[in-house]
Amino acid sequence: MPRRSFWAWGMEADEPTLAQLQETALQLSSRYGVDVETASPHTPTELALRAPRLSPPDDLAGICSTDDWDRAYHTYGRSYPDRVRAFRGEFPSPPDVIARPRGEEDIERLLEWCTARGYHAIPFGGGSSVVSGFEPEADAEGVVTIDMERLDRVLEVDEISRAARIQAGVYGPALDSQLRPYGLTMRHFPQSFEYSTLGGWLATRSGGHYATNHTHIDEFAESIRMISPSGAWESRRLPGSGAGPSPDRMVLGSEGTLGVITEAWMRLQGRPDYRASAGVYFESYEAAWQAVRNVVQAKLWPANLRLLDATEAHLAAGMDGRESLVVIGFESTDVPQGPNLRDAVDIARESGGRVSNDDLIISDEGSADAGRQGPVGAWRESFIRAPYAMNATVPLGLVHDTFETAITWDRWPGLDESVRAAVTEALERVCGGGTVSCRFTHVYPDGPAPYYTFIGMGRRGGEIEAWSEIKRVASDAVAEAGGTITHHHAVGKLHRPWYDNQRPDLFAEALRAAKRVLDPAGILNPGVLIDPL
Amino acid sequence: MPRRSFWAWGMEADEPTLAQLQETALQLSSRYGVDVETASPHTPTELALRAPRLSPPDDLAGICSTDDWDRAYHTYGRSYPDRVRAFRGEFPSPPDVIARPRGEEDIERLLEWCTARGYHAIPFGGGSSVVSGFEPEADAEGVVTIDMERLDRVLEVDEISRAARIQAGVYGPALDSQLRPYGLTMRHFPQSFEYSTLGGWLATRSGGHYATNHTHIDEFAESIRMISPSGAWESRRLPGSGAGPSPDRMVLGSEGTLGVITEAWMRLQGRPDYRASAGVYFESYEAAWQAVRNVVQAKLWPANLRLLDATEAHLAAGMDGRESLVVIGFESTDVPQGPNLRDAVDIARESGGRVSNDDLIISDEGSADAGRQGPVGAWRESFIRAPYAMNATVPLGLVHDTFETAITWDRWPGLDESVRAAVTEALERVCGGGTVSCRFTHVYPDGPAPYYTFIGMGRRGGEIEAWSEIKRVASDAVAEAGGTITHHHAVGKLHRPWYDNQRPDLFAEALRAAKRVLDPAGILNPGVLIDPL
Repeated sequence: MPRRSFWAWGMEADEPTLAQLQETALQLSSRYGVDVETASPHTPTELALRAPRLSPPDDLAGICSTDDWDRAYHTYGRSYPDRVRAFRGEFPSPPDVIARPRGEEDIERLLEWCTARGYHAIPFGGGSSVVSGFEPEADAEGVVTIDMERLDRVLEVDEISRAARIQAGVYGPALDSQLRPYGLTMRHFPQSFEYSTLGGWLATRSGGHYATNHTHIDEFAESIRMISPSGAWESRRLPGSGAGPSPDRMVLGSEGTLGVITEAWMRLQGRPDYRASAGVYFESYEAAWQAVRNVVQAKLWPANLRLLDATEAHLAAGMDGRESLVVIGFESTDVPQGPNLRDAVDIARESGGRVSNDDLIISDEGSADAGRQGPVGAWRESFIRAPYAMNATVPLGLVHDTFETAITWDRWPGLDESVRAAVTEALERVCGGGTVSCRFTHVYPDGPAPYYTFIGMGRRGGEIEAWSEIKRVASDAVAEAGGTITHHHAVGKLHRPWYDNQRPDLFAEALRAAKRVLDPAGILNPGVLIDPL
Repeated sequence: MPRRSFWAWGMEADEPTLAQLQETALQLSSRYGVDVETASPHTPTELALRAPRLSPPDDLAGICSTDDWDRAYHTYGRSYPDRVRAFRGEFPSPPDVIARPRGEEDIERLLEWCTARGYHAIPFGGGSSVVSGFEPEADAEGVVTIDMERLDRVLEVDEISRAARIQAGVYGPALDSQLRPYGLTMRHFPQSFEYSTLGGWLATRSGGHYATNHTHIDEFAESIRMISPSGAWESRRLPGSGAGPSPDRMVLGSEGTLGVITEAWMRLQGRPDYRASAGVYFESYEAAWQAVRNVVQAKLWPANLRLLDATEAHLAAGMDGRESLVVIGFESTDVPQGPNLRDAVDIARESGGRVSNDDLIISDEGSADAGRQGPVGAWRESFIRAPYAMNATVPLGLVHDTFETAITWDRWPGLDESVRAAVTEALERVCGGGTVSCRFTHVYPDGPAPYYTFIGMGRRGGEIEAWSEIKRVASDAVAEAGGTITHHHAVGKLHRPWYDNQRPDLFAEALRAAKRVLDPAGILNPGVLIDPL
């Protein structure tokens, strides 16, 4: 049976072959001017895990596994250090038990068991975290990871209101196929879509493919249901409310520390019949982001509005490496989008952009594949494939990661300058060189969400130390420039030091007090987001 | 010097004259077929307030008032029972001291003083609450109402990001004039705009004039600063973030129970140069709301999208009393809105609506006053004047109030039917008849925010009991049909019983735990939203 890779993105079949690694090594050697050695792909038969330190009670044994592969697979997410450690076969602190509840009663009993024994209980969605979002604490005395994959159904569809009640464990593609017969879709496509779940999106405030207007999953939640050690929590299903602070907003971003999200009523969309898109070229990077600012402040709300700097435009869309690219895309179920695209393109041209009218791809004017051709299509393909790219770079010993933030426009140029300088310096110092590049993944009228990629050559065996130094430098630079430590990758354990400086201290105290109400024994996902005490 | 009325909406000059009352009495007698007696307008010279029970310490005396008129004015908001009691001169539990801090240091010292003595501290914005949002508790041993009117400045404007740092005590019109020199505006126009403040909007999650997309003030807050008894709370200024649950969302809707909001960075708009609007007529009420649903689900995001049932369309827009009206309006700083209006009107026509192409008022086609003519203009005028309408009905002994909710589309027809039936029955039973009517104030893709008005004849001296019974019946009907007890009027003391049934119990416990962190002595606005213990 096909199995997920425990270190690569995707399935075991997505792990690179020796021939693929050799080819990638050649490409990277020439692209970055570094000497990339090929490496043997890892074979996962060498696992030697610590024995499970606990065994589930009889009434839970049927939904629990202590299999080594299963426990290894649930140890790490898909961040750079996660992949390196898993590739090396280093699993010093795996969970002891993997539980797969069939419903809320199972979850209640699991939380009772963990509360009574003081075991850590870690909710697990698709395992795509890049922030150590579910990695067990090294000093835990027992760890039960709760994999929600069996709660994978759309339970109810309200076609009138365009909403559905959906179980939290459903993966992106399965969700989309269950909604398809109704002609509806959530259209929330984070880059992790294939291997992430609704519950994970809600717990981490994921960012979807909509680049403007409603970007985070937050906006799509009508109501959320969660099981905490103190009982069930369910908000009323409403299109909007002003009755006190929003209960959902306390759950959104709680990263498994307050309870296990079991289901939610989610807002849906009609499937888009109308699409219009264009790639606009800019000789000047500043002109490109000013164009993005002007388009978003005009509130045309394109579904896609992404800036790729010259490096990204070269790698993702095959451009010349000197020009920046702004990708603009509209979509609608009901209304032709040509006029919106033309308005946006006019604004982009006024800001110095270049695109021929022949290159506006508009579905209602006969272009069936609007958004899937030219530089826009290349960008789309690159976006979808990006998580797989690290499957080849990790085994080759490259230090390769991304980080992202959001910042108001007034401080954006300063942030970009200082982040690039800091990361370039760190790459030089740690890796002897490398590249840093930037795109915008989401854009607001008051500022962009920039997304940086860096890559350099690591020293075999020292990759994590190298990565760690660059990540620290990057995070410091983002924080000092006034950005958020994460726009849509969550806090986890990885971003804790910067998050702790970012949120109001009194808010952290208030959140801890709320956690004590919901999780009195402090068993839920310790180490992530906040400390229980 | 002109002074605010302590019972009517607006200034003392807005209180009705005897002649005005006589005219209104005649109109209402004929409109509702009831016998409306004229009454003398109240004269506020008869105030006889309980003496203040406390006196401020020397270092606070300069910012404190114990004047009778001042204390009467700060006792009640502008709900129906508030106005009736104030009109009658009934002020059994006025605040003892009105403090007007000049800055955060004054607020810190006021909270210290109240915490030390166990006095209740009540933040006060514009005084427009319709939910007993700042009325002192009858059993309080001392009450200090903190009127924020001196913190009324725009402190900083970021024209690049379109945002400003604004003090919480600024009233709507003053805010708008301070932003005008920059060509910017917040464009958040709740019906209370003239007599409400930024801090009040944030604390109560107010709803602005935008009928779709970003409706609540929540969406306009970039960061919020608040002084609590435990210290200052300030979120980082960001266009978006996914770093843990949003700190701002705990403050938004906290109704003065967690701290005193002192300032916020707010998102702004360019002033709209392009406007387009139309009033679409419907013989069928159901066809009208289906049209609204179809327009909002097409995500054209009109600034105005309001349904008026036949009664409201008659009273507000001069229509025949049989047809419903759908008001559609677009506005933009940058882009002509004619095409959007035509798309929306097409959808409304497909749903059975009637409007002549000549009646599409489009500014970029020469209609400078789009949105200010025809039935749309009449609606606009009526919207602005509505809070003043009760100035005449209260002295005449009518039982006259509004209530509002939000509900998903699938349950909307059932809610409308049961709410109308329940309120009609109660009006019959309590007042011997009356009318109930409905409009939509805000609309979401998954449901509308309906806003009901009821009016009946009260018995002199028994108006509050009559109102109270109808309000109870209406609130029960809304709750039973699955609506929220408030979409944008807040919870206050008035909506507590229904709110307490609506929010998750564990959320209330979590919020109480958060309050204990921020306000350990439980002095901040007791009785509102949650109980401190």
